[in-house]
Amino acid sequence: MDKLDETLQRIGTLDVEAMALASERQDRLTKPQGALGVLENISIRVAGIFGEPTPEPGAKTVIVMAADHGVVVEGVSLYPAEVTAQMVANFIGGGAAINVLSKHVGAEVIVVDVGVASDLAGEGLIIRKVAPGTANMAKGPAMSREQAVAAIEAGIEVAEREISRGARFLATGDMGIGNTTAASAITACISGLDALEVTGRGTGIDDAALELKRRVIAQALNVNHPDKNDALDVLSKVGGLEIAGIAGVILAAAAARQPVVIDGFISAAGALIAAGLHPGAPAFMIASHLSVERGHGVILERLGLRPIIHAEMRLGEGTGAALAFSFIDAALKVLREMATFDEAGVSGPEEALDNA
Amino acid sequence: MDKLDETLQRIGTLDVEAMALASERQDRLTKPQGALGVLENISIRVAGIFGEPTPEPGAKTVIVMAADHGVVVEGVSLYPAEVTAQMVANFIGGGAAINVLSKHVGAEVIVVDVGVASDLAGEGLIIRKVAPGTANMAKGPAMSREQAVAAIEAGIEVAEREISRGARFLATGDMGIGNTTAASAITACISGLDALEVTGRGTGIDDAALELKRRVIAQALNVNHPDKNDALDVLSKVGGLEIAGIAGVILAAAAARQPVVIDGFISAAGALIAAGLHPGAPAFMIASHLSVERGHGVILERLGLRPIIHAEMRLGEGTGAALAFSFIDAALKVLREMATFDEAGVSGPEEALDNA
Repeated sequence: MDKLDETLQRIGTLDVEAMALASERQDRLTKPQGALGVLENISIRVAGIFGEPTPEPGAKTVIVMAADHGVVVEGVSLYPAEVTAQMVANFIGGGAAINVLSKHVGAEVIVVDVGVASDLAGEGLIIRKVAPGTANMAKGPAMSREQAVAAIEAGIEVAEREISRGARFLATGDMGIGNTTAASAITACISGLDALEVTGRGTGIDDAALELKRRVIAQALNVNHPDKNDALDVLSKVGGLEIAGIAGVILAAAAARQPVVIDGFISAAGALIAAGLHPGAPAFMIASHLSVERGHGVILERLGLRPIIHAEMRLGEGTGAALAFSFIDAALKVLREMATFDEAGVSGPEEALDNA
Repeated sequence: MDKLDETLQRIGTLDVEAMALASERQDRLTKPQGALGVLENISIRVAGIFGEPTPEPGAKTVIVMAADHGVVVEGVSLYPAEVTAQMVANFIGGGAAINVLSKHVGAEVIVVDVGVASDLAGEGLIIRKVAPGTANMAKGPAMSREQAVAAIEAGIEVAEREISRGARFLATGDMGIGNTTAASAITACISGLDALEVTGRGTGIDDAALELKRRVIAQALNVNHPDKNDALDVLSKVGGLEIAGIAGVILAAAAARQPVVIDGFISAAGALIAAGLHPGAPAFMIASHLSVERGHGVILERLGLRPIIHAEMRLGEGTGAALAFSFIDAALKVLREMATFDEAGVSGPEEALDNA
């Protein structure tokens, strides 16, 4: 708990002076004010995060947290639980979507076993296993409060290591068969919405399985009575070890004053827990894409985050966040490299008024 | 007209066999089927465009068409008309947003004067001036039918030259103070919607100027009576020379069986004209972003295109299309580089059913 508390205490606020300078520069660049929309907003917020008026693009790392879920015995997923471990091996082997997309944008992929059921090994795999998967939340708490804290702290420590190795931009990713069930339960609990409104088809279940999944989530909330105002209670009772790890990565980035790109629904559930632990955390988050999963939009709206990519993706792993890295680099390059009206000798709107 | 007719005659259909092979491969990659959403769709359509089951990323070129608009004398824009020429100089100098974003994604920028009011020169600028701007559409036709054809053919010839120089992926861009007025008029005419529903603030005009702009568009449609079923009639009466040039670029790409990325509202108006000239053209178009301009979504829906990027951009120049190049490359790399379930030894959903 010391590590978590110490991290929470280090989370500050955005540098408003750097943001004002970035915003003022955006308005002098050769384009109508605000015409690059969210790209401008991102550049200004990253300026506030780093405390630099014109931050440079830099080293990017996707941290993929992997864990298993006891709730899969209820039949909530289309895939067997062993796929978690098989996909971790695929990440290590470089054959998964997150590998291809990270390579495309020049990001490194770090894979962390924070709770996979089977024992894994492989070059590049970080073992921080808190438990061999969660317990079945439909029957009782998914994990103890101590385990939840340990998994968050594993995320913090992995992120701190990457930051110390030079990562300037972090992104979150996940792997865990059954984890949309946990993410939906967290979202339903904290938002107060019915499980029906925040539960989707995950890897692609049919109508009958979707109905079952919703009943399982409602049952988990009934059995465990998580306290929506206590993020650690929600996380431990109906969450997942990888969701805890993701929350830790986010908190570590915020504490280090570095931006962290939030992937899809599972990562957003981790972001919701991080925001519950520290209300200042969302200022350091950048949303990437809007998932097909219904709960994702609910969380992003709650956190005040606006996703750039609308591509009907629902894969997780960090794939949407990796794609968004290209936008963030673009946003920073616009701020740094575009000519101003003065430099380019282009008339501004005021002169238009003079001419009118 | 010979060049245009000959180009239209060469436009064919997508290669369904290559698309079937691409689709089948997508389903064998280590992810739930369809989980990469629009990225999968794009990879399959590009396979159909090139007639190759796993097309490679390749050389990218943004073609920016620049022209002036006689209608600016009505006061429809926040900026003076000379900004068109000043921004063309900025493109040539490398200081504009399209330069920064194209460099970011590894694309070349080609700038074409198809109708700028003043005489321009500069290394890299292609002069294909059909007229020194259009006439004021609020008083009569923006241009003659012959001028519209000449501007389309200029676009075709520039695109063909870039293709012969090795460009595999084209994108459209625009510069022209006053051109959202022309794009809105085209959209209102062809969609049958009221000018009110397809007209936005362009570079950022206020409520009074917006009301004026809508009245000017309604007047232009009243004065000229363009025939919505005759794309050349619409283009010549209420269009713009750069919009004609963009339509030409799109038709040339389609005729050459190459994908063409459509930028924002102005480019979409050119795409609408291209689709009016050949109903097979939209199959070769890839939408990039959804603009703040209200008419943009109207056109994309009509063309059956789905924009990936939702970033409240409204700059034009090809900026949204340039950003989308990163996604298209990503989509093709996923199809080519990801491991299949067999290669990675990952269980598919069938085994989940066996286990149930």
